[in-house]
Amino acid sequence: MMRIITIDREFGSGGRELGKRLADALQIPCYDQEIIEGVAKLHGLEPEHVEHISEADVRTVYPMTIGKRFMMYPTKTKDSIQVLVSQQNVIRTLAADGDCVIVGRCADVILRDLNPMNLFVYGSQESRLLRCMQRIKEKENERDILHMMRKIDRDRAACRELLTDSKWGQKETYHLCINTSDKTIKQLIPALVSYVDCWFEE
Amino acid sequence: MMRIITIDREFGSGGRELGKRLADALQIPCYDQEIIEGVAKLHGLEPEHVEHISEADVRTVYPMTIGKRFMMYPTKTKDSIQVLVSQQNVIRTLAADGDCVIVGRCADVILRDLNPMNLFVYGSQESRLLRCMQRIKEKENERDILHMMRKIDRDRAACRELLTDSKWGQKETYHLCINTSDKTIKQLIPALVSYVDCWFEE
Repeated sequence: MMRIITIDREFGSGGRELGKRLADALQIPCYDQEIIEGVAKLHGLEPEHVEHISEADVRTVYPMTIGKRFMMYPTKTKDSIQVLVSQQNVIRTLAADGDCVIVGRCADVILRDLNPMNLFVYGSQESRLLRCMQRIKEKENERDILHMMRKIDRDRAACRELLTDSKWGQKETYHLCINTSDKTIKQLIPALVSYVDCWFEE
Repeated sequence: MMRIITIDREFGSGGRELGKRLADALQIPCYDQEIIEGVAKLHGLEPEHVEHISEADVRTVYPMTIGKRFMMYPTKTKDSIQVLVSQQNVIRTLAADGDCVIVGRCADVILRDLNPMNLFVYGSQESRLLRCMQRIKEKENERDILHMMRKIDRDRAACRELLTDSKWGQKETYHLCINTSDKTIKQLIPALVSYVDCWFEE
């Protein structure tokens, strides 16, 4: 059985790090920024532009759906839609190569037929803020970071809601929800490796 | 470090079975019905009556709180309040004996000072219904079971909301949320044992 693990996450919860570390421990690839870069290359666009289309901008381009309503929205260009279609294709192509971890981008829904194991990584606001403060340029203050955290999560939620039938961050959407408030990501990896092994055992 | 694991759960998700199996695998006791029986014995009451007070009936007796509002509610007797106080004491006494798994009864909040690991067990409505159908008397039909599932979970949510500051079933309340829809409880135990080992490691 193929082992595809998808990771959805709250901003600042350490979901990206968890994906990378879990993939390393399982000795399989982790796809995250690689997806954006693949799409950017296909369309001759800057990765930042693709990232913007695939999360923040998605609310305005949703005639292309994975399983929900079909509705034309007149304001956006064919380009944005093509980027989203490409992103799905890139994700399917990467997954077809074999076992992997995929971070974000509704990969759990796109790859539903491959029976992925779907994780959600979350944490208390304080712990996420702390993680961000350690990572982000010093000049940004707490209030700005909190504002950014909320905006990014709002965009992710809107993206999922428009492209799929499931709700972002609602535990029913995932197989396992992991609270990272009280532990480092590194501490959780051995347990998660066992969980993944167990999950894919028949 | 003491290993106290608390389990909160949706009705029919297999939370009770998960608690028992996890405790067996860890070779520590699991307290569930034992709490009710302990309280019943203390007060010379039937266990069913104690169970009713501690979940369904709690909405009417909440002057005694664990950490939220304090408000007199005139309709209920001193007996009910004493039962709830006893339940807290029984839980604290059991936990003081050493490592254990405790199912339900807001044990995560009552034992907060002991830094328990708090799990929530949930599943799709279909999977929970199926589990109930396998367990419950044949004469009950699907509609009745669904009605009962909803009522019990509503009571549990109300109980937690009145006695604590946290929300029942909301992932932020717990360290790990486990979806049991696609696996048997037995299949998940080795992974959970690893998770617990990892969690309590310093």
